Amino acid sequence: MAQKPSIPKGTRDFNAVEVAKRSYIMNIIKEQFELYGFQPIETPSFENSDTLMGKYGDEGDRLIFKILNSGDFLRNVELGSKFLKEIFRRNLGDAFIILYKAEFEDKSIEEIDNISDVDKIESLYETSLFNNNLFLNTFSDNIIEKIKKEFSKMSPFLLAAIVRYMKRIAEDNTSLFENSQRFSKAVERAYFKNVFIEDNFKDVANKISEKALRYDLTVPFARYVVQHQNEIEFPFKRYQIQPVWRADRPQKGRFREFYQCDADVVGSKSLFQEVEFVQLYDAVFTALDLKGVTIKINNRKILSGIAEVIGVQDKLIDFTVALDKLDKIGEEKVKEEMRSKGMSEDGISKLQPLFSLEGDFGTQVESLKSILNTSEVGLKGIEELEFIDASISKLGLKTANLQLDVTLARGLNYYTGAIFEVSAPDGVKMGSIGGGGRYDDLTSIFGKPDTSGVGISFGLDRIYLVLEELNLFPETIADATKVLFINFGDKEAMACLQAVTQLRQNGVKAELYPDNAKMKKQMTHANRRNIPYVVLLGEEELNSDTYTLKNMKTGEQEKLKLQELLSSLK
Amino acid sequence: MAQKPSIPKGTRDFNAVEVAKRSYIMNIIKEQFELYGFQPIETPSFENSDTLMGKYGDEGDRLIFKILNSGDFLRNVELGSKFLKEIFRRNLGDAFIILYKAEFEDKSIEEIDNISDVDKIESLYETSLFNNNLFLNTFSDNIIEKIKKEFSKMSPFLLAAIVRYMKRIAEDNTSLFENSQRFSKAVERAYFKNVFIEDNFKDVANKISEKALRYDLTVPFARYVVQHQNEIEFPFKRYQIQPVWRADRPQKGRFREFYQCDADVVGSKSLFQEVEFVQLYDAVFTALDLKGVTIKINNRKILSGIAEVIGVQDKLIDFTVALDKLDKIGEEKVKEEMRSKGMSEDGISKLQPLFSLEGDFGTQVESLKSILNTSEVGLKGIEELEFIDASISKLGLKTANLQLDVTLARGLNYYTGAIFEVSAPDGVKMGSIGGGGRYDDLTSIFGKPDTSGVGISFGLDRIYLVLEELNLFPETIADATKVLFINFGDKEAMACLQAVTQLRQNGVKAELYPDNAKMKKQMTHANRRNIPYVVLLGEEELNSDTYTLKNMKTGEQEKLKLQELLSSLK
Repeated sequence: MAQKPSIPKGTRDFNAVEVAKRSYIMNIIKEQFELYGFQPIETPSFENSDTLMGKYGDEGDRLIFKILNSGDFLRNVELGSKFLKEIFRRNLGDAFIILYKAEFEDKSIEEIDNISDVDKIESLYETSLFNNNLFLNTFSDNIIEKIKKEFSKMSPFLLAAIVRYMKRIAEDNTSLFENSQRFSKAVERAYFKNVFIEDNFKDVANKISEKALRYDLTVPFARYVVQHQNEIEFPFKRYQIQPVWRADRPQKGRFREFYQCDADVVGSKSLFQEVEFVQLYDAVFTALDLKGVTIKINNRKILSGIAEVIGVQDKLIDFTVALDKLDKIGEEKVKEEMRSKGMSEDGISKLQPLFSLEGDFGTQVESLKSILNTSEVGLKGIEELEFIDASISKLGLKTANLQLDVTLARGLNYYTGAIFEVSAPDGVKMGSIGGGGRYDDLTSIFGKPDTSGVGISFGLDRIYLVLEELNLFPETIADATKVLFINFGDKEAMACLQAVTQLRQNGVKAELYPDNAKMKKQMTHANRRNIPYVVLLGEEELNSDTYTLKNMKTGEQEKLKLQELLSSLK
Repeated sequence: MAQKPSIPKGTRDFNAVEVAKRSYIMNIIKEQFELYGFQPIETPSFENSDTLMGKYGDEGDRLIFKILNSGDFLRNVELGSKFLKEIFRRNLGDAFIILYKAEFEDKSIEEIDNISDVDKIESLYETSLFNNNLFLNTFSDNIIEKIKKEFSKMSPFLLAAIVRYMKRIAEDNTSLFENSQRFSKAVERAYFKNVFIEDNFKDVANKISEKALRYDLTVPFARYVVQHQNEIEFPFKRYQIQPVWRADRPQKGRFREFYQCDADVVGSKSLFQEVEFVQLYDAVFTALDLKGVTIKINNRKILSGIAEVIGVQDKLIDFTVALDKLDKIGEEKVKEEMRSKGMSEDGISKLQPLFSLEGDFGTQVESLKSILNTSEVGLKGIEELEFIDASISKLGLKTANLQLDVTLARGLNYYTGAIFEVSAPDGVKMGSIGGGGRYDDLTSIFGKPDTSGVGISFGLDRIYLVLEELNLFPETIADATKVLFINFGDKEAMACLQAVTQLRQNGVKAELYPDNAKMKKQMTHANRRNIPYVVLLGEEELNSDTYTLKNMKTGEQEKLKLQELLSSLK
């Protein structure tokens, strides 16, 4: 039965044009990253689970794709299942033969020969060793070790129980076989107790999966920095353009596999870096011909300052979440939400000037100063913003606008200083097309404290949609094969292939139609693939050592010598 | 507790130089693919398991990385675990509260309001509904449906058992609570029966995982071709350069994540494609300056022909596996292995000429002809080889050699015509650095029969090692930042950044050292990063509007105006 082919929800196939367009964006980002001194690194698609788990909150953890322990794991699960099945059928002998196989069947004959006790074990179970006490006296520890080894791979929650009962039986110094009823009963109870009472399935999921697909590029980067800190020269400027995976509900513009394009610097607190990131955003979007993007900037210290001034430091997150909605739900609803979270009327009224922040960067900053004049941290945030704004004013931006947005939060708990977000030009409906900020202590979870970092990210998929909507991809982007040689039969095709070879060596994308199909079919093939030229090399051309070059758009034809052909297609 | 950072075995981090070297190889391969008319596609990193499973043999299946169903799956596993725990504690009421939560807690309040029976259910269990028969009469089907829904997600092997016993209790028309002892006992037994007797863990693994990481690029390509056949113009020439994942035992040069670089044509049986693939190999390795690679070629039809002649068609695989070892173990041991597999002395003696095949392509072909003169399929294979050889002789190869190798098999069951393998130049110890062949029916598993394909692959990691060993990477490959501006303080740094901005706009990779650190530290940073120039812009330069450019290799310094600086660094 043929399978109906499909791909998992939230994933995509990309055809040649889509690959070309995506590469176009990535190459421009890459080029600008490198002009700004960022160096590429790559990390593995999957990391150890404990590198990722617990770094993105409960919701994030849930969205991490976990990879089943494979190969040996599945083999042992299967063998373990058979082993237990035999035990519950009271076939202890068979059960242990399975165990024996589990131990040795992945080894070569040579290897098994070198295991000193193999003959002993083999003869022992061949002669129903499980019938006598000799076995238990001699091998109980041995067997327990084997079981331990197998079951620690297969099903850790079961291990403790089995070993416990094996030991008890061994201590009884009676035959394992005589005890088989009691043994299997005990394992059965212990199994239940372990699975349903002591363990729970979540732990089991963690035990059968030790690796997980990368959820973002930031945590792997932090891991990379700490792991390679002795090889890295700080401040370390790296960029990374790789896919990430999230088990999010797929929806328009949100996928389960998508690329992130990140640039970060770690190892310096200099605000010049924030300045350069604003420039970098401007440079990339200018190079993409996407004019008029808005780079919104805020600072965590300002948010902390406001919370301090209105006396809700302890409700910083509630406060910020509410403020963040100003754009969407308006002033009144924001205030309502703040009230419902228990913020005082007095505090909220102090916020009033925030709701009417207007004017350019400088004017807004002046208003903020008056709001925050009692907050040290708030004033520090303002100072940082002013430095960035003044620098950018001096340096100038090509096509982007820098805008203060005190409602901007973006994963507040993560950022400690500047917060960036880029929105598409006016008139294009699209969420943010980039974002980032400063985080002061990312690498400490991996054992390297006090390493400040700052970085930005580009949203490839959304940028793609914006460029598509505004028709900003260069027309020539998917230019593929330039010339197709029509196949008139083996003799002619052979001569064609010689010319094709020459063209390719001169950098011209050229193809020979592989079969001697009908002329019309071959011409249609050229048209469907948007190949602008075909070459006809029939009997006549072969004899006169010429090539008929046909322009598929105009229909014009000309007879050319090989050198002429080369120079007209180059 | 800080975690000690590490990555899963068999995976790798790549630093900037490694990324640059890998990109160098991939870009050259890509460029040649495109000159030959191949178009890029990309497929998702993970496919539905049933797309991949069963395509690579038992061993292959074992090596496929499976992805745990995530998000909802884990939530339900957890809830299911809690549910069962309560059941086994005889707390049926609590168990059903969990079930209720499982059903509704991922819904918004608004959504729950719209579920007509929610109030009913809620009040029912709040008033210990499980005590009276009303519940069972009214809701047993309802509850069974809910359980079905939850448990079909959580633990399919358990579902049947629970539902069966729920139904039996419902039929008894007695209270669920009164039956709780009997019920939990029954579930317990049924659970065991299901897990250990009727199901087995392998099925469970398949049920908790529906997606798997790509194992190669060929099967996803076949899936792509069938899924998109109506958009594709055939013959379809595609290339694909993406990572694949295999749970192989990691060893030198073998990784669990690695890139494949494949080019394939589907939809034509023309032998000109085989000819072009030989040229393509030559073109890529020539462009990489890796001269003297050997492109070995064979044909499945020749292997079939030989088996036919010596009367072992039914042992084609045993025969080929043995023959394939000629290089490694020599003639005698090959014959021994053939004997041990039951091939006749008579047949083996007919092989004698094979062992002494010598000379150039043409000479070997002549010997083969005499061996295979009674085999139609064998002679067809020879004809194909001769066509390819004659064409290549006419077209010429730049730096590679084409060699007939009748022992070459490479996944015999897969290929139906030409078989290719590329080995590194003499003197470099390395397995094959490329391979491929023709397969006549790859897409039929996905419902598109009779679509011949032929393709080749490049082994990126091994090519990398070979280029490294022969020192063939261009020296400038990792040239990163060209000039570092020394930071003498904010005022000077600001002026630097203006010059840096100009340089970047002119395509020069330039950086400002972000902090006003000690001069020596900044110079060391430039040296460690192999930055060839630094610019010094102190008080004096600021006043005279000049830049002191220092060549880090020679130590030479010169004072330049901005325009001079630009033109000397460009």
